[in-house]
Amino acid sequence: MNFIKIVNEATPIFNARAHSCTDFSSRTPKRVTDFSTTIAPSTNHKTGLTSGNKFLDPRGKNLLSVQNLLHQLVDGLTEELSNAVELAPVPTEWMSIPKSQLIPDQPVSDTELLETCRQLVRGSMNPAHPRYMGHMDPLPSISSVMGSLVTAAVNNNVLSREMSPIFSELEQQLMRELALLFGLPETAGGMLQSGGTLCNLQALTVARNSQLGLKDVHKNGLIQLTSQPVIFASELCHSSIQKSAMILGLGTEAVLPVKVDDQCRICPKALQNSITQARQSGQLPFAVVATAGTTVTGNIDPLSAIAKICQNEKLWFHVDASYGGAAIFSETHKPCLQGIDRADSITFNPQKWCYVTKACALVLFREEKILDRHFRIAHPYMSLNEEDHEINLGEWGIQGTRAPEIAKWWLTLLQFGKSGLEKLIDHSYDMANRFNRLIDERDFIECASVSEMNIVCFRDTRGSQDETARGERNQRLQRGLMKDRQTFVSLPRFRNSRWLKAVLLNPFTTENDLQEIFDYIDHFEV
Amino acid sequence: MNFIKIVNEATPIFNARAHSCTDFSSRTPKRVTDFSTTIAPSTNHKTGLTSGNKFLDPRGKNLLSVQNLLHQLVDGLTEELSNAVELAPVPTEWMSIPKSQLIPDQPVSDTELLETCRQLVRGSMNPAHPRYMGHMDPLPSISSVMGSLVTAAVNNNVLSREMSPIFSELEQQLMRELALLFGLPETAGGMLQSGGTLCNLQALTVARNSQLGLKDVHKNGLIQLTSQPVIFASELCHSSIQKSAMILGLGTEAVLPVKVDDQCRICPKALQNSITQARQSGQLPFAVVATAGTTVTGNIDPLSAIAKICQNEKLWFHVDASYGGAAIFSETHKPCLQGIDRADSITFNPQKWCYVTKACALVLFREEKILDRHFRIAHPYMSLNEEDHEINLGEWGIQGTRAPEIAKWWLTLLQFGKSGLEKLIDHSYDMANRFNRLIDERDFIECASVSEMNIVCFRDTRGSQDETARGERNQRLQRGLMKDRQTFVSLPRFRNSRWLKAVLLNPFTTENDLQEIFDYIDHFEV
Repeated sequence: MNFIKIVNEATPIFNARAHSCTDFSSRTPKRVTDFSTTIAPSTNHKTGLTSGNKFLDPRGKNLLSVQNLLHQLVDGLTEELSNAVELAPVPTEWMSIPKSQLIPDQPVSDTELLETCRQLVRGSMNPAHPRYMGHMDPLPSISSVMGSLVTAAVNNNVLSREMSPIFSELEQQLMRELALLFGLPETAGGMLQSGGTLCNLQALTVARNSQLGLKDVHKNGLIQLTSQPVIFASELCHSSIQKSAMILGLGTEAVLPVKVDDQCRICPKALQNSITQARQSGQLPFAVVATAGTTVTGNIDPLSAIAKICQNEKLWFHVDASYGGAAIFSETHKPCLQGIDRADSITFNPQKWCYVTKACALVLFREEKILDRHFRIAHPYMSLNEEDHEINLGEWGIQGTRAPEIAKWWLTLLQFGKSGLEKLIDHSYDMANRFNRLIDERDFIECASVSEMNIVCFRDTRGSQDETARGERNQRLQRGLMKDRQTFVSLPRFRNSRWLKAVLLNPFTTENDLQEIFDYIDHFEV
Repeated sequence: MNFIKIVNEATPIFNARAHSCTDFSSRTPKRVTDFSTTIAPSTNHKTGLTSGNKFLDPRGKNLLSVQNLLHQLVDGLTEELSNAVELAPVPTEWMSIPKSQLIPDQPVSDTELLETCRQLVRGSMNPAHPRYMGHMDPLPSISSVMGSLVTAAVNNNVLSREMSPIFSELEQQLMRELALLFGLPETAGGMLQSGGTLCNLQALTVARNSQLGLKDVHKNGLIQLTSQPVIFASELCHSSIQKSAMILGLGTEAVLPVKVDDQCRICPKALQNSITQARQSGQLPFAVVATAGTTVTGNIDPLSAIAKICQNEKLWFHVDASYGGAAIFSETHKPCLQGIDRADSITFNPQKWCYVTKACALVLFREEKILDRHFRIAHPYMSLNEEDHEINLGEWGIQGTRAPEIAKWWLTLLQFGKSGLEKLIDHSYDMANRFNRLIDERDFIECASVSEMNIVCFRDTRGSQDETARGERNQRLQRGLMKDRQTFVSLPRFRNSRWLKAVLLNPFTTENDLQEIFDYIDHFEV
């Protein structure tokens, strides 16, 4: 393999000063574009606070120079990424960066900054590759990249309305509209948080504070507990549920794993039994988490049946639809979410199947106002809009200072429209169907479950029936696909073994890509 | 006031379809640039999943078209913001956006997308304005804007190393280097989290899990408690400390407010008494939070004295240096942080005084390895690097999926260098000194404390001595400065009244700006 060529040897990259830079990348670029040759020489960075391109001068003095720098970056970035198909889906040899002196005493030049940006791109996971299908991580919509740029440039703060007037308004309005889309009532609402874990944590915080029957948990905490609060969730729920329980002071063991059927979905009967048993043993059930789109297999717990149990048992009903919530945009597929309209809270991450740049995740509450009593912490240093009785979102969510990630989501909704999202989602279901047909044609491949979304979890069953040997075989297969077919499927642990997982998210993936993957598998010998 | 003129009436903005758009903005732009006229007509959005500019084609088919779109955005954004001085620091009439139908059925055109971006800029808080001094929110460094764009374009995920090879490595290395800068030992390390609240929450989670003397809080939770755990923090600590205590199941009242002296700093004697008293009353002290840069006045608790108390009392010592941590880059001013090297954990937010776009905050632990036992939740679906014994940061932090915000921070460190950051920080201290001198020249203005950073909290004491009347007078003064002098100082509640707060962050603020503010105050009559 070749190493990156330093395109302009007269302007060595930052790292080259103190360290060798030849180990920075092991990927061979097809088209090396010089990020840096046409940029105007920057003014002396060493004098003046605001010289050069450190900031955009609010009186416009360096407008052309900053524009030039950003144009160079746009060109370099897009040229690298429009060549994504020639780069590995995941760099096969991870980059090493200097072990020390990452913080230079003196500024680097704009040229070096641009070169560093290119190195970051080269060292990145490459979800734009049509054969990247390892995780729920999409190539991003251009509109969300635009939103990221707008968000960065204005650097607003959704902590309070006065720090983000239009974004706070936009976030609340859009959350209400989305809540209606999920079938929640007019009283519903919510907010973004930077990632699904925070959304689940917030929902479970509110559930804990409101459902334990204790005196003001918000103020007094859990010292009052006389029995152990427990949450019921699929044995296949995301680890953020255990993480939330740990943070909330309930302990990871407060998440009681409910048995799933052979399709990886909670058995309602098992859930009911588990609740009854917990009560009998003196535990304090307060919430059920249903998963719509499990991490490994993309299956969906039976939401309606669970909703009914929650209603009877008076338990908080949270739906972790981080992945699967996107199906709401497809007329054909949204019936898989039936029952989600009965949730007390929903997590949904547009950063996954809706192609929005990270982070973009949201939590909806059936009764938005519950946050006021069971979550809100006031910010006494915020005041400007008190008389308007408007909400400062930083008081209602886990995060305080927060970037207005809503812009990326809204711009993506505008660029795609409901119809565009629907097409993308229907298409990825279609690709999963094709993938499954290719599996069905091979009796030596088994699936972990019947796909309900665009995720296929499967394994090669040839060779030794010993679980360890089989796991190792599939691991070798995964490595082989990466090395010889530039294909990244992931290798989750599941049912005490190793499986292969394909997430058919990328709209540039073709039938031909799938065919080549299976041709490789057919001829794979250890 | 004039409303935004729709620059190209043939291509109405999205909202104009269903709603009036004339209420979108009340700011009058000086230079109206057409974001949209030169863009090539996009291909038909209605056919094809990948037509037009929805995604950057990984085979480069729409490279020029996407570049063109992003160049238009860069030009429009920078032209708006290079005119920041002509726009209000905060829009005086907050924008209203449509109450419904934010999600269109059909895609909008690229022209409409660009127009929407402009409207978002116009509706934003404007921290680039040299007279924006309301909060700890800076105008962003261009390098961090570049980092935001790179981060968005590659859409990596710091959840795991295989989803962000170079960024995971960069984050861990840079955290270790920063830990050394703060005087922590070689065993220290940490990570970014999206905002200071999450950093404080994570530090206090680890403190709670490791310090209560209970059996495996991580797994078993707080049911075992027989006495109330308590945290000691300044009565002026940030509300995220109460929020953390609430989330952690300790309750907001578990944060025992320690009296401050007239300089807004914890009295060590009061802290010692408070700890002794808590123990005597059967409570369970486990942590002290010291603040380096209080939200309202920017003062610094006596870190060395508190460190000594924590050592004697065997309490976790957390320093919330969200704001003040930046002083570490100034040789002149870093002595104000003396004692921070004795912390068990530190929160520091480059998103504030280091000019990095949001979110960018970090938490450091004296012993990085403590996270493994007292925080980590494993992700069984992540595997690729298990044999390398490398850390997946999503297992070690509160967030799972997370954007690689480290890029923005590193690029800013490169663009400024230590020397550049030092100059910016020293300069803003200097501006605060000038501000304070202007106050000293006026016997009718009092300060809440002696400034220790670039924050001045003050008020006009003329007129009625009644607290309510005085608060109202200062509120009118704040409004007047905004309306008549385009100056945004904030209006925190403090000592049961309203005060004015100026954060001298913006390097484009001049002495003349300060002089004009005080001239206005001098002549302010109700």
